[in-house]
This record gives sequence, structure tokens and C-alpha cells, in this order.
Amino acid sequence: MRIDVLTLFPEMCEGVFGTSILGKARDKGIVTLNAVNFRDFSGNKHNSVDDTPYGGGGGMVLKPDPIFAAVEHVLTQTGADEEQAGTEEIAAVKPRIILMCPQGRTYNQQIAEELAQEQHLIFICGHYEGYDERIREHLVTDELSIGDYVLTGGELPALTVIDSVVRLQPGALGNETSAVTDSFSTGLLEYPHYTRPAEFRGWKVPDMLLSGHHANIVEWRREQALQRTLERRPDLLETAELTTKDKQTLKRLQEQASLQQK
Amino acid sequence: MRIDVLTLFPEMCEGVFGTSILGKARDKGIVTLNAVNFRDFSGNKHNSVDDTPYGGGGGMVLKPDPIFAAVEHVLTQTGADEEQAGTEEIAAVKPRIILMCPQGRTYNQQIAEELAQEQHLIFICGHYEGYDERIREHLVTDELSIGDYVLTGGELPALTVIDSVVRLQPGALGNETSAVTDSFSTGLLEYPHYTRPAEFRGWKVPDMLLSGHHANIVEWRREQALQRTLERRPDLLETAELTTKDKQTLKRLQEQASLQQK
Repeated sequence: MRIDVLTLFPEMCEGVFGTSILGKARDKGIVTLNAVNFRDFSGNKHNSVDDTPYGGGGGMVLKPDPIFAAVEHVLTQTGADEEQAGTEEIAAVKPRIILMCPQGRTYNQQIAEELAQEQHLIFICGHYEGYDERIREHLVTDELSIGDYVLTGGELPALTVIDSVVRLQPGALGNETSAVTDSFSTGLLEYPHYTRPAEFRGWKVPDMLLSGHHANIVEWRREQALQRTLERRPDLLETAELTTKDKQTLKRLQEQASLQQK
Repeated sequence: MRIDVLTLFPEMCEGVFGTSILGKARDKGIVTLNAVNFRDFSGNKHNSVDDTPYGGGGGMVLKPDPIFAAVEHVLTQTGADEEQAGTEEIAAVKPRIILMCPQGRTYNQQIAEELAQEQHLIFICGHYEGYDERIREHLVTDELSIGDYVLTGGELPALTVIDSVVRLQPGALGNETSAVTDSFSTGLLEYPHYTRPAEFRGWKVPDMLLSGHHANIVEWRREQALQRTLERRPDLLETAELTTKDKQTLKRLQEQASLQQK
């Protein structure tokens, strides 16, 4: 998999690319990570990449030329710009060109799994500025938002998406890692975890976890996961895969909760 | 404002702390940004900060001791751990201690504005591991999730929250920036932006924006914002502040859309 990030702050990306799972995946050859400063494609002697908006108003708008030129430069490197004989194999390497913006589709684990199948992703990250609409209309294939909050740039959102996609590549997660945080993969929030010491400042690990009864522990954990999801994110229960027993447990937990409220 | 990030990968944070708006806010003295490696507080000769979970299962769990010790070290630095005479002023510097985790409250602009009022934020970032439940129960004041996707660590989410909070500090955004990307502050998605050239590869800027009729441009932009929100994020219309005219416009847009479908 190849990932290019178009940004005015490549140093923000480089630091993250070299660290932890991303750094290891790169070292193992699982992913090629590349930050491209699109200021290098400004095409003017002032190296300007933005301009005031037509129609007035505050703020600057990223011009179309440098972004188109930077994307085309990346495509030249991968050969995806060449006239091809239209075979399926060639079609498959067409990159997804992703604009990080608040107007985009809200990113979630399903989109992560979809992007993880791709061979080439190109991210376009603005910084404080808006994007000229022609970038949106004629260049990008996807617009993504990582959540409903305002940020100063698209770099942290792009890195967030990249982290979630690269960890899904075969071999990216080593033995030191696990599915322990895979809340959204199971459809429920995680049950509580405990490790040593068994007593810390007077706070003890639940007896159940020290009991050694494996089947009971599995049952306790499932109930805890259901309870936590019910309390914190009941919306997830609508799409989670639930057994008949899960549904009975949920009914009991809801009855207990309504009794406590009385 | 002071912000501490407890992490096993301080270098991931340092690169972002020094860049763009965060770097400038730090240089101006608006915010103190500090990455703390909680491995320095392991309290054992192997520098281990995690252990296998009680009750079995895959993955590692972050032990409570190093996290508590690192937070207490930060509190010593700010004096917040000392016995105080309980004045309101002192009470105000109690930090928010924020755990980044998928089980947390879904972060949004309202929470950003709330956190922006605080004087001290401490972020706890796990990495692949789960957290010992006693950290959650007895140390943290908030649990936050930036969205429904699985990441390898809490660093990118913490940096995302920090970026959104620091940009709200008075003086953090310079003249070069603006409210251009403030989609979630207005309650609607942004209208389309255009800048030079007026024609790029045959794609023209809408005539309206070149007309010079300021009032008409304002009206056109509002309608575009309403239309985009209606098409992409109709959920936002439920909470957006809409004028009577906005509601009439929306009604007309909905009627047009339903006619087109027929």
C-alpha cells in the first residue's frame, strides 16, 4: 500500500510516520508513507498557494493549481497517469484521492476497512484555509471528516485515518498488540480490564477475575460490555450482533436500571 | 493554559507541538505544551508499564501505578497537589484529567468550547493496550473518544483535541487565519469557496461571485450552505439556528429535490 499526504507541514507527518505501528509497518515494507509539500507546486515566484475568496469575506482559499499539480506529480511517480490499455489490473491501482474537510462523510470503522483494501491513497490537507470548490468537484474521489469539531488543518485527521487503515494491513500489528481496543469491531464497548497489582491503594480487582473459572469470566465480561454500551452508547446496540442471551441480559440490565431510578 | 500529555511516544507529540498554530501559540505564551513519558514512572527496573490481564485473554493492560505516579508528578509541578485553603481561585486550577479511549464521550465542538475555558488539561494516552479500570474509576475526570474507529493509540486523538482547544484561546489564531472552516460553529456546513484563477482548465467560478452584488452574494452563499447541509448532514439542521427565511429556503430546496427524484 502507498499513501501520499499533500500538506504545507510535512514535518508534522514525518514525526508520526516514523513512530510505533506506522514506523514499523513502513520498516517492514507493508506501507510506503510519503509527505508532499504542495507549496513546491505553487507555480509562482512567491510560492503562494492561496488567495482571497471571490465574492469577498474573510479567510484565504487554497488555489486549485498547486493541488492539481501535486496530485499529478504523485500519479506520475506511480505511473497511474499514463494512458493504459484499461485492463482490470491497471484500473485497480487508481488511487483514492481524499479531501479531509468538515463537509465530508463522517469517518468510521466501516470506511477504514474499505480504505484498507486500496493500493494507493492520496490525502489532501488544507490548513486554516478553505478549498477552491473545483478541487472538490474535479479532483477528489472522497471527502472525509473525522468528527464534528473544528481543527486548524487536515493533517491530524489524515494521520488519524492513516493510522486506522495501516493497522488493518496484514502483518502491521505485531505480537505485542492485540484486539484489546477493538471496541468498534465487536460492535460493543470493551469490558473493564484489570492487571497487577491485585490491590492498588486499597482498590481491588473484582474477585471474579481471580476465580479461575474461565466460563464465568467470559460471561461476566460479556455482561460488563453490554452494560457499558447500554449506559454510554446505547446507539451502538442497534447495529451490534447480539445473541438471544445478550438480549435477555440487556432486558434484565434495563429493568435493574429502571428500578434503581425509582 | 497548561496542557500535559502522558504518553509512551513523546516524540509523536513534540513534532506536532512545534508546528503551525500550536507552535505559534506556545511561542506567544498562550499555552504550555508538555509531553511526559510515563515509562519514566514505571517504578520497576524493567521499565514495564503494562502486564497481562487478570482473567486471561489477549493483549496487555496498562498498570495503574505508572499512570497515577506520572499524573501526581505533573500535579506537584503545578502545586495542585498541595493542601489548599479551598479558595475559589485555587479550586479553579484543578486539572481536567482526560482519558482518550473508544468508550469515552464522543468529542464535539461543544466539548471543545468547554475545555477551552480550563486552565490545565492532562491527557492520558494508551498505546495498543487497554487501561486498568482503576485509572478510569479513581483518577480521570473525563473519558473522550474522537470518533467510532479503532486507532493504535491515544496520541493522535489527544493532539486532535488539543488543536481544537488551543485554536479557541484568545490570540491563538493570527490574521492569516479566519473562521473559514468553522462549519460546526455556525451549525451549517460551509458554502463553496472559489479563488483565482476565474477559469481553471475550463472550469469557471460561478458568475454570481464575480457580480459584485454583495447582498445577492450573501444570499447565494446562505442558500448553498443550507443546500449542502441538507444533502450531506441533514442531522445538523435539527440544532442549527435558522431564520424564517432559512426555513422557507429549505422547504423550497426539499421540494426541488423531491421533484428531481420523480
